[in-house]
Amino acid sequence: MQPKVYLAGPEVFLPNAVDIGREKKALCEAYGLIGLFPFDNEIVDEVKGRRDRQIFAANVDMMRQADAAILNLTPFRSPSADVGTVFELGYLIGLGKPVFAYTAVASHLRSRVPGAARKKGGDGWIDRSGLLIEDFDNADNLMIDGALGFVGHEIVRVDAGGKLSDLSGFKICLQLASDTLRVDYAA
Amino acid sequence: MQPKVYLAGPEVFLPNAVDIGREKKALCEAYGLIGLFPFDNEIVDEVKGRRDRQIFAANVDMMRQADAAILNLTPFRSPSADVGTVFELGYLIGLGKPVFAYTAVASHLRSRVPGAARKKGGDGWIDRSGLLIEDFDNADNLMIDGALGFVGHEIVRVDAGGKLSDLSGFKICLQLASDTLRVDYAA
Repeated sequence: MQPKVYLAGPEVFLPNAVDIGREKKALCEAYGLIGLFPFDNEIVDEVKGRRDRQIFAANVDMMRQADAAILNLTPFRSPSADVGTVFELGYLIGLGKPVFAYTAVASHLRSRVPGAARKKGGDGWIDRSGLLIEDFDNADNLMIDGALGFVGHEIVRVDAGGKLSDLSGFKICLQLASDTLRVDYAA
Repeated sequence: MQPKVYLAGPEVFLPNAVDIGREKKALCEAYGLIGLFPFDNEIVDEVKGRRDRQIFAANVDMMRQADAAILNLTPFRSPSADVGTVFELGYLIGLGKPVFAYTAVASHLRSRVPGAARKKGGDGWIDRSGLLIEDFDNADNLMIDGALGFVGHEIVRVDAGGKLSDLSGFKICLQLASDTLRVDYAA
């Protein structure tokens, strides 16, 4: 049976989320994988209850079904990744699932924090509010980079201008995932 | 034995992080709990290897030891919570640990996204880049609020101007945690 891969990322907030989801799922197939994409719109509106909690439960269910996941950690409305995707990263690692991740920026976190400056008379960097900025050449917070390093594959950084829908990092992760899950496919 | 509670939050980036950590640990004691606070500075600099990965491993170790966690989800450098804390929330839920969380803002996520506007000719809200904004009266992304709701306690929202070091929400979470963990303490 083909392994199932959960596809997480902030592209669900783009106007063409459904098209991107379909494209990602088609790419998964080409690598011998089944992509599970959270098409929130598939949640039936008529069902009684809170729609947000239904989406939460559907996503959790998909993650539990998945054999692995590929996450899009491109910065979203901040110097860091989308918190929904980061929650899922943590959850999947807690469940012990193999994860792969990419970001459409090549830069390190510090370079993206507005007003980053060296701390006066000391080591390290701070932002305009005097809050410490991590300075480890990581793509994002050390827990995120650490998690990916821990499971064996550092975050794939692609210089694609932070475009949420860019798929070059995704394709590299697909290759890693199919190698790791030992899938036979005709590339 | 007193239950151990992991204390997560972006206050580790404040200049007085160590003082806040000590204060939080002391409050835990008053509620019959042992607070585990990630004092990153305790990581010995002389140890060989990457310091960021040592901090990651130390935090993971603390979370695995913990019986529960209290997380500070106050917005950090964005409309949303600190991604490090959100990663930990996901991880702890994946491990099946009871979690409690608070934020020092009472507002919902949509109200904090810059340039939020109604979508022309349709339902819903978008930001200046045309990206969808969730509109569920949640404190943050639906995966975050959903996770807390799922484990039984919604995010505690306190109107404290987004002050990262505010402890009023933390105290409410301590009460919830000690009730849930059935701790006897003299309040």
